[in-house]
Amino acid sequence: MSIVSIVGAGPGDPGLVTVKALELVRNAEVLVYDRLVSLELVLQAAGAARIARDGLNQEDVNDLLVHHGLRGRRVVRLKGGDPFLFGRGYEEVEALAAAGVPYEVVPGVSTLTAVPGLAGIPLTTRDVAAQVTVLTGTSADGGELDYAHLAATPGTLVIFMGLRRLERIADGLILAGRPVDEAAAVISRVSLPGAEVRIGTLGTIAAVARGLRAPAVAVVGEVAALGAPAQALPLSFPTR
Amino acid sequence: MSIVSIVGAGPGDPGLVTVKALELVRNAEVLVYDRLVSLELVLQAAGAARIARDGLNQEDVNDLLVHHGLRGRRVVRLKGGDPFLFGRGYEEVEALAAAGVPYEVVPGVSTLTAVPGLAGIPLTTRDVAAQVTVLTGTSADGGELDYAHLAATPGTLVIFMGLRRLERIADGLILAGRPVDEAAAVISRVSLPGAEVRIGTLGTIAAVARGLRAPAVAVVGEVAALGAPAQALPLSFPTR
Repeated sequence: MSIVSIVGAGPGDPGLVTVKALELVRNAEVLVYDRLVSLELVLQAAGAARIARDGLNQEDVNDLLVHHGLRGRRVVRLKGGDPFLFGRGYEEVEALAAAGVPYEVVPGVSTLTAVPGLAGIPLTTRDVAAQVTVLTGTSADGGELDYAHLAATPGTLVIFMGLRRLERIADGLILAGRPVDEAAAVISRVSLPGAEVRIGTLGTIAAVARGLRAPAVAVVGEVAALGAPAQALPLSFPTR
Repeated sequence: MSIVSIVGAGPGDPGLVTVKALELVRNAEVLVYDRLVSLELVLQAAGAARIARDGLNQEDVNDLLVHHGLRGRRVVRLKGGDPFLFGRGYEEVEALAAAGVPYEVVPGVSTLTAVPGLAGIPLTTRDVAAQVTVLTGTSADGGELDYAHLAATPGTLVIFMGLRRLERIADGLILAGRPVDEAAAVISRVSLPGAEVRIGTLGTIAAVARGLRAPAVAVVGEVAALGAPAQALPLSFPTR
């Protein structure tokens, strides 16, 4: 029986897609793909109806998946990174479940690990960081972050955010008590063309990161100082 | 020029390895692999010297990588999950850098996202959880966790731990103020044969999880209640 596959495409480089995801894309009848998914990967769905998610709202996407799923088509929903970590994959899963459409979730390489990894920044090291806290630039209700709590949080912070919020977040952390000279890195477009890594401190990072392009991830903590120029991986697939 | 590749193999299912990782394994001359890497994946390195990491200490592994790297061999160090999130990949990177051996890091599907994802547990949802905190069962210095701080941490907690520590951790969180009826899940061997997901509350989870096999991951927070039986993905590779 056909099912709808909610699939993580990884951080952008088509080499970082999973074997299972590539196989699903190649056999898809309908492909709905996010903006940051590589064109090369999208083109692997040679026989599929290919629908860009851009310009659709979440409800449109849910309806699309349900519509084609109910007709028994092999539907692949290709999402940047991992579907279940800031990927809003669960909203699509809920819509499919409510409509009685069978589905599966295929995890992908998350931006959380890929981006720092490619930038040479380990999120944990044996002695320094045994905890990683991942957050977006705003709290669950869309308000300010709890800077007092974050200031006392051990280990590494990884922040998925708009670059415009970086200065405010860095200032918030410093005012709440994190050291102004704590290492911080901003990693822009890693695994995509134009990747860049810049390293500074909480006090300097907003200035250091000026001019970088989205999407970007910030890393705060001792490990950030270990960063290096971002790697470029070869953008190619094995032949079918 | 040959380089040493530090490669994430994903959570166990060979379908969740990246295209790039599979290509590197197939072309390896020396493969050093972790215990939880699937045999099927190891066997793809048909022409390679295959060295199990089990029984070696970290220094032995570092020396192996440096030894073969200095001789210009295509060395692949295949690690479970992602190399830079609780993967100790950085210790190997440091050894290679110190010896002047070129290396690359190829991120993998982390257990952090794969295991909850396959169990139907989104780590974040739009309204409920905008923060994820990932930790091991002990602090960076090997001591107790800071339960008071964790009790006030918003969002989802993901704990990589020995099952034997589960009761102690759950009790610690409750005593520090997390609700005894907060949802908690333990996910055992997901993406490996014998996968199992059990769902309860902080108060019941230690009893509910009794008898599960390692490796296991615990998820604490509202999202844990969304879990479902773990998916099994097909264990096969596309032909070469």
